[in-house]
Amino acid sequence: MSFPYSPLAVVGTVAVDAVETPHGKRDKVFGGSASYFSYVASLFTKVALVAVVGEDFPQAYRKILQERPIDLSHLQTLKGKTFSWSGKYVDDMNSAQTLSTDLNTLLLFNPELKFKKQPEYLFLANIDPDLQLKVLHQMDRKKLKFVAADTMNFWISSKRDQLLKVLSKVDAIVLNDGETKMLTGEKNLLAAAKQIIKMGPRWVIVKKGEHGSMLLGKNELFTLPAYPVEKVFDPTGAGDTFAGGFMGYLAWTKKTDFATIKQALAMGTVTASVTVQDFGLDAVRKINRSHLTKKFKHLQSICKF
Amino acid sequence: MSFPYSPLAVVGTVAVDAVETPHGKRDKVFGGSASYFSYVASLFTKVALVAVVGEDFPQAYRKILQERPIDLSHLQTLKGKTFSWSGKYVDDMNSAQTLSTDLNTLLLFNPELKFKKQPEYLFLANIDPDLQLKVLHQMDRKKLKFVAADTMNFWISSKRDQLLKVLSKVDAIVLNDGETKMLTGEKNLLAAAKQIIKMGPRWVIVKKGEHGSMLLGKNELFTLPAYPVEKVFDPTGAGDTFAGGFMGYLAWTKKTDFATIKQALAMGTVTASVTVQDFGLDAVRKINRSHLTKKFKHLQSICKF
Repeated sequence: MSFPYSPLAVVGTVAVDAVETPHGKRDKVFGGSASYFSYVASLFTKVALVAVVGEDFPQAYRKILQERPIDLSHLQTLKGKTFSWSGKYVDDMNSAQTLSTDLNTLLLFNPELKFKKQPEYLFLANIDPDLQLKVLHQMDRKKLKFVAADTMNFWISSKRDQLLKVLSKVDAIVLNDGETKMLTGEKNLLAAAKQIIKMGPRWVIVKKGEHGSMLLGKNELFTLPAYPVEKVFDPTGAGDTFAGGFMGYLAWTKKTDFATIKQALAMGTVTASVTVQDFGLDAVRKINRSHLTKKFKHLQSICKF
Repeated sequence: MSFPYSPLAVVGTVAVDAVETPHGKRDKVFGGSASYFSYVASLFTKVALVAVVGEDFPQAYRKILQERPIDLSHLQTLKGKTFSWSGKYVDDMNSAQTLSTDLNTLLLFNPELKFKKQPEYLFLANIDPDLQLKVLHQMDRKKLKFVAADTMNFWISSKRDQLLKVLSKVDAIVLNDGETKMLTGEKNLLAAAKQIIKMGPRWVIVKKGEHGSMLLGKNELFTLPAYPVEKVFDPTGAGDTFAGGFMGYLAWTKKTDFATIKQALAMGTVTASVTVQDFGLDAVRKINRSHLTKKFKHLQSICKF
């Protein structure tokens, strides 16, 4: 396969994880924000994956990415081991307890973009804000139609200034409810999201796990319940596939207006609802775009009044 | 005012409360499930209030009820003091810590219905399931178009059998998320709601506070976000006014089909969102039906995609 042009690019992590949930325990799960993101976003469009792995990165996992229209020419392999995260979900399936984080080759990651034609849609997955900025600086901002970024509590406390720079440069920031409150010190989600809009992004997307999501713009508001799921098996990757469905849909439709962004949020929601029904990528490997479209319509029907 | 016929009746409590929230502390707040319910439901239709108070019940509070088309002919006054609840919201504005409950005349409450023409819509607010059954038994079930019931953790643990009898006799049961899980022992809300449907009610309504609500029928599902509120001042009465808006809307439209029930849930949602913006009934006293209709349309617009 050759990938002369990918409309969507993602920079983030590719990892080998260990996950424990009330439903079981699994070692060497294929994980990482950019893996989850690109695997589902590629159901909608070609995706360029910008990330790093170590020499130990399993060939089997590379093959999983190659199943889909994912351009791996920006997936660097460096000497050392692949980034690894280990976490546990106890009572609260909405947030994991991190048991260990081995950054390994991620510490050496220095993204260098060599696109023949620059992608128009960019997702800065959860990664050091300095790296997010480094990627942004290598892009011609005028050719970017829509840039969204994710982050986490660790960067909010340890790299706040750099994160605020990211916020001032993106179209949308994706945060969970805890991060939204942490970033602003405001307990009420709507009030917190309004504060974040003042930090620069055109849109704030607040993910509330099983409670759905909220989209706030300068003059726009949208609230969306989660897609109801009877059994949450493993929530890992839910946020990344939410973003993947969201950005994939935007790049697919080639639009960025409010109506399309709302639909994209719904597509992200149903994508995440599939992810949580098995370990790692196992559940999303079984679906195609028409599955997601069907669930999208179902979500539309159960929200309508 | 004379009330020859009320299409809607509520049995529940009328109380004098003490409430403490992060925004302040207030004694002698006019409270009780039936007070909150009837005050907002009467924006839509005439409401018969079936409850008990003590001789100390302030004339000022009776006058508040008399501001609206509320039939007080079933509001008994007994020797002794009025039921009183005292509670505190600390970090979690979704659930109160009960500081004290003085049942007083509520212990002597023995509802006797003497309607010239029986209401068609009935709400069994949070009260001893034995009393809920006593009221139901005095009604001609064939003349009732829609009966809904509320309950609380205390009755789920102390009067489970009687509560299950109530469940088998009503069209809808209204529970919060904690009660839904407690009643079934099931942690997943959708799975829990499905179990409750098997206990008899045609509809289960799960209230999730700031996270919205869910409606489950035998073959129907509806999910609704909360109406976003920037400042939650006092959540007391939110559930009762949610039910009041819901039942009031049903009685007003004279319908009970799925489409109307979904709209009624949205009306309950916006009614509750007003309630929480001040202590007790203070916020809802300032609104009329057209305020609610406007908020209803706004909720519709921020949920649509």
